[in-house]
Amino acid sequence: MTAPAAQSPELTRRPSLAAVASVTEALAAAFGNRLVTSRAVREQHANTVTWIRPQAPDAVVFPHDAEEVAAIVRLCAQHRMPVIAFGAGTSLEGHTNAPHGGVCIDFSQMNAIVAVHAEDLDCVVQPGVTRKQLNEHLRDMGLFFPIDPGADATIGGMVSTRASGTNAVRYGTMKDNVLSLTVVTATGEVMRTSRRARKSSAGYDLTRLFVGSEGTLGIITEVTLRLHGIPEAISAAVCPFPSVRAACDATILAIQTGIPVARIELLDAMQVKAVNAYSKLSLPETPMLFLEFHGTEEGVKEQALRFGEIAADLAGGPFEWETRAEDRSRLWQARHDAYWAAVALQPGRAALSTDVCVPISRLADCVEETQGDIAATGLVAPIVGHVGDGNFHVLISFDADDPAEVAKVEAFIDRLVDRALSMDGTCTGEHGVGQKKMKFLEREHSPAALAAMRAIKAALDPDGIMNPGKVVVA
Amino acid sequence: MTAPAAQSPELTRRPSLAAVASVTEALAAAFGNRLVTSRAVREQHANTVTWIRPQAPDAVVFPHDAEEVAAIVRLCAQHRMPVIAFGAGTSLEGHTNAPHGGVCIDFSQMNAIVAVHAEDLDCVVQPGVTRKQLNEHLRDMGLFFPIDPGADATIGGMVSTRASGTNAVRYGTMKDNVLSLTVVTATGEVMRTSRRARKSSAGYDLTRLFVGSEGTLGIITEVTLRLHGIPEAISAAVCPFPSVRAACDATILAIQTGIPVARIELLDAMQVKAVNAYSKLSLPETPMLFLEFHGTEEGVKEQALRFGEIAADLAGGPFEWETRAEDRSRLWQARHDAYWAAVALQPGRAALSTDVCVPISRLADCVEETQGDIAATGLVAPIVGHVGDGNFHVLISFDADDPAEVAKVEAFIDRLVDRALSMDGTCTGEHGVGQKKMKFLEREHSPAALAAMRAIKAALDPDGIMNPGKVVVA
Repeated sequence: MTAPAAQSPELTRRPSLAAVASVTEALAAAFGNRLVTSRAVREQHANTVTWIRPQAPDAVVFPHDAEEVAAIVRLCAQHRMPVIAFGAGTSLEGHTNAPHGGVCIDFSQMNAIVAVHAEDLDCVVQPGVTRKQLNEHLRDMGLFFPIDPGADATIGGMVSTRASGTNAVRYGTMKDNVLSLTVVTATGEVMRTSRRARKSSAGYDLTRLFVGSEGTLGIITEVTLRLHGIPEAISAAVCPFPSVRAACDATILAIQTGIPVARIELLDAMQVKAVNAYSKLSLPETPMLFLEFHGTEEGVKEQALRFGEIAADLAGGPFEWETRAEDRSRLWQARHDAYWAAVALQPGRAALSTDVCVPISRLADCVEETQGDIAATGLVAPIVGHVGDGNFHVLISFDADDPAEVAKVEAFIDRLVDRALSMDGTCTGEHGVGQKKMKFLEREHSPAALAAMRAIKAALDPDGIMNPGKVVVA
Repeated sequence: MTAPAAQSPELTRRPSLAAVASVTEALAAAFGNRLVTSRAVREQHANTVTWIRPQAPDAVVFPHDAEEVAAIVRLCAQHRMPVIAFGAGTSLEGHTNAPHGGVCIDFSQMNAIVAVHAEDLDCVVQPGVTRKQLNEHLRDMGLFFPIDPGADATIGGMVSTRASGTNAVRYGTMKDNVLSLTVVTATGEVMRTSRRARKSSAGYDLTRLFVGSEGTLGIITEVTLRLHGIPEAISAAVCPFPSVRAACDATILAIQTGIPVARIELLDAMQVKAVNAYSKLSLPETPMLFLEFHGTEEGVKEQALRFGEIAADLAGGPFEWETRAEDRSRLWQARHDAYWAAVALQPGRAALSTDVCVPISRLADCVEETQGDIAATGLVAPIVGHVGDGNFHVLISFDADDPAEVAKVEAFIDRLVDRALSMDGTCTGEHGVGQKKMKFLEREHSPAALAAMRAIKAALDPDGIMNPGKVVVA
């Protein structure tokens, strides 16, 4: 792990003040007031949404196109200055922190929708486009982009963390919905990872290598995304279950029998209780599934009826479903409110969301054991799960100023990850590695796999300037 | 491109006779009669199914498990001896040739189905399992694996070439259906690329990097695959169209409106003519679409009726569809016979199948221009297409002993690739690069992308022993 500094492409200390001054002056000359070094702006670009200590960059620059990004990277490469890409700043594991300083590239001014190819069901966007902005643009064309992490993240950020969300069970994750990327390499060259054809066997899959690489191998400057037709009909449903296990079994049966559920989300009893308090509802405080079906008018009816039968066989119910938009929203209100309801359980305290993912056959075990751990640890931590994928989140409120409580939370996450790994699961299903989950990669991956990741990092970023201190140290 | 030999990890010449003798002796001692050096067996393991000149390895070895594969690779690494993985030998671009000699690892004795996890809809197999063997094993469990290249390829080979086939429009390609791999690295270590969880954001996507890497980065020794439930109902349909463009437009409309077609295949007029002659049918000799719909009883009826309306609007028809297995087979007979019918057009001559893939909006242009080129060149070359993906094959019969005719065919393929690339397509949608499409990667990818591929090759296979002379030269 600890190679001599001379052999390591990872930066082990901040660039010199002279290097910072050189780079900042050159960027100011080229970018004018699009280069900002004020403390307030720099701190806004450090990690902000979670309890991880913010580490501000030395400067923030707002480019307009790939050529400007390439010029920034070339300048930084010359001075061995770290480069950190910044989208909406909604990542959860310290991805945008600058532990070694450096230049933060803010993509808020690269937010153009470059092209929509309706016949090909794809579009080309700059990385600063947010998912809601994209879907508003697409709506009148009858198209949508399904990946929906909770926040209104940017597409560039979603590519970088291999994001997913509630639709992944039907539409896949970012890895399945990115057709091609334009990337600025660590040496400041611009490359396209593949053509716009829907499939290809022409060489190594650079697209999938950059999806989920968290800015550590290069900087994404354009994204070609797959799109989907807005379904003719949508129905939503909710169904309480006597246990997490019964809800998971219903999910497994639904998928095995080929019901093409678009969304299937689990709220545990504590989360339902939180929502009842937050939104003044009176749902039964028991595990509940929230579902959505996409298809034709007849198709969504058939899907809902079939799921209702499965639920009834597992003592679930009453099963309610609706097709009108306002009724669907009413049914799904508890799911939409989940995050804020969890935060409101202990107002004024810090909150974090962590995630793991296991094979779906082990999901009930993993959730139940985690609930036991939460109770034993004395945490207030509801669970929300994308159960069709075996992925769930624990929303933890705690006092970030109390070192003992922080230690307790960290020990809990440690056990959560070990539990998921013991079930052939992963330390993160969709949040990414960032700073906080780096230590778990050693446990999750074999030494040879981690060595391969480090070799790739060293090959593509030999000076270690791309988002250093995240994912792997080469 | 041409680095000095000392810097290049690519082997530029065959290993010495002494090295071959050392490795062969050591393997014979360890593997007994599972190490074969007879000329007949070595030649069987060189490229056999296409017109590319066969280049035999020095020895063929038949391992039983990953540890044996690792031992073979360590021995070869010690002597800088090439290692070539061999599945069923059905690849089309010279993937299994041994231009620099070396050891061929034949996976026919590693063909166990290790586990089926029905609840998780996945299975674990050794790489020598063939797709038909797997589907026979799965049938009684109500599960299937959808990827179907024409040949009964091995799963290891299908991973390596990023194979797809007729179901890809609905179920994706190998990249979408591999959950995890066990790989022996170029230094002979065993690694697993990821856990069995359905999704993960825990580091670089090694799985997708190895899918499609054609044995040039490591040797696959185990594969975890996604499975799907056998649909409750299947309907098949055929529909003639007045033109390739009308057939393509019908395909685009079907996908845009969300008809979840499982298969949608195009035969051009020459291919239909070939099938009429071969199978004594009397189909109208005009472009035809062959379709399959998967779903519930009601669902497949609805899908077929909707597609029939689209076809009628585009002057297609008569549209015929059936749900009973024997009637479906009758309708699809022409598609099943396509390859042999094409070969039979000019019996006794060599035949090759080449493929390109373009955005679907450009498919009609690409097929029509290619038909014009075929006519102008005087080739006999029917076209079969996976039109839902924009991917099509040209089946060319020619005299492989006539250098002028070979040159004519090569020039035609050159123009075909340039045509696809000019439409933002790729030089191969599913066959892979092998030896014959290496030259096209320079045209398809930007210099920085190709440099990234070479850097990855050099990082993971620094001595260039893994299937040298394929995909990229580092």
